[in-house]
Amino acid sequence: MNIPETKFPRVVIVGGGFGGLSLASSLKGVPLQVVLLDRNNYHTFQPLLYQVASSGLEPDSIAFPIRKIFRNQENLVFRMTEVQEIISEKKILVTSIGELKYDYLVLATGSQTGFFGLKNVEQQSMAMKTIPQALDLRSLILQNFEKAMLSTDVREIEKLLNFVVVGGGPTGVELAGSLAEMKIHVLPADYPGLDASKMQIHLLEAGSRLLPAFSEVSSASTLNFLTDLGVKTLLNTAVKDYDGSTVKVNTGNDLLSSTVIWAAGVEGAPVKGIEGEALLRNKRLSVDEFNRVKGYTSIFAVGDVANMTNDERFPNGHPMVAQPAIQQGELLAKNLKNMLSDKPMKAFQYKDLGSMATVGRNKAVVELPFMKMQGILAWLVWMFVHLMALVGWRNRAVTLVNWMWSYFNYDRGVRLIIRPFKK
Amino acid sequence: MNIPETKFPRVVIVGGGFGGLSLASSLKGVPLQVVLLDRNNYHTFQPLLYQVASSGLEPDSIAFPIRKIFRNQENLVFRMTEVQEIISEKKILVTSIGELKYDYLVLATGSQTGFFGLKNVEQQSMAMKTIPQALDLRSLILQNFEKAMLSTDVREIEKLLNFVVVGGGPTGVELAGSLAEMKIHVLPADYPGLDASKMQIHLLEAGSRLLPAFSEVSSASTLNFLTDLGVKTLLNTAVKDYDGSTVKVNTGNDLLSSTVIWAAGVEGAPVKGIEGEALLRNKRLSVDEFNRVKGYTSIFAVGDVANMTNDERFPNGHPMVAQPAIQQGELLAKNLKNMLSDKPMKAFQYKDLGSMATVGRNKAVVELPFMKMQGILAWLVWMFVHLMALVGWRNRAVTLVNWMWSYFNYDRGVRLIIRPFKK
Repeated sequence: MNIPETKFPRVVIVGGGFGGLSLASSLKGVPLQVVLLDRNNYHTFQPLLYQVASSGLEPDSIAFPIRKIFRNQENLVFRMTEVQEIISEKKILVTSIGELKYDYLVLATGSQTGFFGLKNVEQQSMAMKTIPQALDLRSLILQNFEKAMLSTDVREIEKLLNFVVVGGGPTGVELAGSLAEMKIHVLPADYPGLDASKMQIHLLEAGSRLLPAFSEVSSASTLNFLTDLGVKTLLNTAVKDYDGSTVKVNTGNDLLSSTVIWAAGVEGAPVKGIEGEALLRNKRLSVDEFNRVKGYTSIFAVGDVANMTNDERFPNGHPMVAQPAIQQGELLAKNLKNMLSDKPMKAFQYKDLGSMATVGRNKAVVELPFMKMQGILAWLVWMFVHLMALVGWRNRAVTLVNWMWSYFNYDRGVRLIIRPFKK
Repeated sequence: MNIPETKFPRVVIVGGGFGGLSLASSLKGVPLQVVLLDRNNYHTFQPLLYQVASSGLEPDSIAFPIRKIFRNQENLVFRMTEVQEIISEKKILVTSIGELKYDYLVLATGSQTGFFGLKNVEQQSMAMKTIPQALDLRSLILQNFEKAMLSTDVREIEKLLNFVVVGGGPTGVELAGSLAEMKIHVLPADYPGLDASKMQIHLLEAGSRLLPAFSEVSSASTLNFLTDLGVKTLLNTAVKDYDGSTVKVNTGNDLLSSTVIWAAGVEGAPVKGIEGEALLRNKRLSVDEFNRVKGYTSIFAVGDVANMTNDERFPNGHPMVAQPAIQQGELLAKNLKNMLSDKPMKAFQYKDLGSMATVGRNKAVVELPFMKMQGILAWLVWMFVHLMALVGWRNRAVTLVNWMWSYFNYDRGVRLIIRPFKK
């Protein structure tokens, strides 16, 4: 891997998501050699992936080169690689570009799409956890429109224009709303020969309400917003099977669709080599209040992959969103520093800053610790928070141009099929 | 193809480049059914492809959805398809989505990369005529940097960091300059462990000067600009072979390089079915002064693929750039209108508006009919003209943000390896 040895202990961080980045940058100036590994050379701002999929933003708005973030951090080395296995007895990490010795290892590998063992669904549906996946989904949506233009077969057109989003969490809600806006504003203008009313968006949620992590008020508002936009929300509806054209559900009301977007399941993304009681059924890693992986002394985990249960508000671990990852990364940096100087470590305490989701133009729900909002004001807050959360001023400026342009033109700027998607 | 018959004659245009778009939009309101076909759902602004390859711009800045351009043109139908063959006796076009009858056919298929029969070069080198190709090249450049970081083998590092651009026309010059700026500004900051001086950019030109279509003054300035930036320009140097690691040249001074970018040859992109004397050796189609393909009465060609020799300034056909295509498209629209009302057609007369090329920051050459410029002023003119030539205000705004950001930060915003390139 061509990484020089230094006189400082080496901490290896696997993953450049919110947790990995917050930890790595908080270690600036600390007497450690920080080695950050990621399979990509960029950080992905996952909350806006659905806008890449729905032709609202290009990848460069939500991706940021990792090397650039750490330009001025002398104790950090970045390598783009795929991590394959941990050999904890030898404190060695095996990667696609060679082996690496560590003194401390931090797993910030995040989460991956879970399919509850539904093999057919896994093969036939579209996931949306990475930028290439979001681009594939964008291509597929636009290709479906093009194909529907060519067809005279009513069933075929129905199948092509029925988009089934599975999962009523923020990702599912935001994508369904965004597709509905494409139906209203883009489809009739771009495809005059196509009957736009034939496009359907179904949002399926296995539970009894949307956004289960939010309050009932927000769930109800969200359902109303989606219904206004023409999205058909099916609650208490779980997918049983999908063969690429028929979605089988528990209620018996099967749906015909060539596009199922799976936003229903999420599980930890562990690394091979961590076994035993540390590896939970949801594939997250059980950690103590200092983010130490159960059973290991030099291995830590932060963010989505870490399952910490010391907080009675979250008996099954913290929500798999950005804030716990960022806060854990920051605290772990302090704790590693404390460890080096033999000071006691501090237990993690999650500060809930609130949550938010957007359905579309002027439609969002926001829950802050001190108030709840729905509608235009919530939408403005959502936009401001997400814009500021992006890394770097260039990304913010480009995103703002795109959002303003879309807002005033009721349009999507980037409906380009750059790489056609083939199943 | 699901295209309704109308009472109007049908003109089918193949290709949504500069020529096809200018013709199609000039036919607005004319009593013809206009069917526009392209293999992509977007128009590519080819003059800025090199900025996509060198991490300066994202595809959305230089691509524009074709359907959007023609939203308000009622007599136009667009289909995304690959054209396969013309059966001229039956006036039928065979495409990947079915057959299409035409009354008039216009080929605006542009040009393709030509390799002068060098099969190995064709297989091993990178071309830059399409957006996916430019993105592949971007990935490869960044992957080479990452790989060089991992290597301790001097020869391997030399190979990875030696970029050989073949062809001293505007594309080659602009790309070489852009790579040189990455060497100066991006490499040292992003890859502190890498010796930036190891990166080399070689620009190979078979003729005796760069930009052969420009004046000698501009050629000399361009050579100076490139030398200032550290580009090694090799004139009178032609590539004979390339096996993926050694570039064999006519002078005997072979080069070690894992990245050869081929910007040396360009030829017409004809469609199967046009044969005989119309198909020239450079694969362009011989047309008369009304853009009628020699030997055919209902088939026309405009732009790069059309070879018109009625102009003594251009005995071998017009230069394969945007202006002749745009002007031919506009005139052909008028001539088709004249044909419909039995008026005489007008012969094409090319109005040379000048040419320009940029080498880098503050460095460009511009030749207008009434004056020549080099340096900062030329660079500002180049930027203004290219910005205004982009389709749509969103693209202009996004491009401007990126250019300003790069200018003030000496940086490239989008050095993202979204889809790794594999040979």
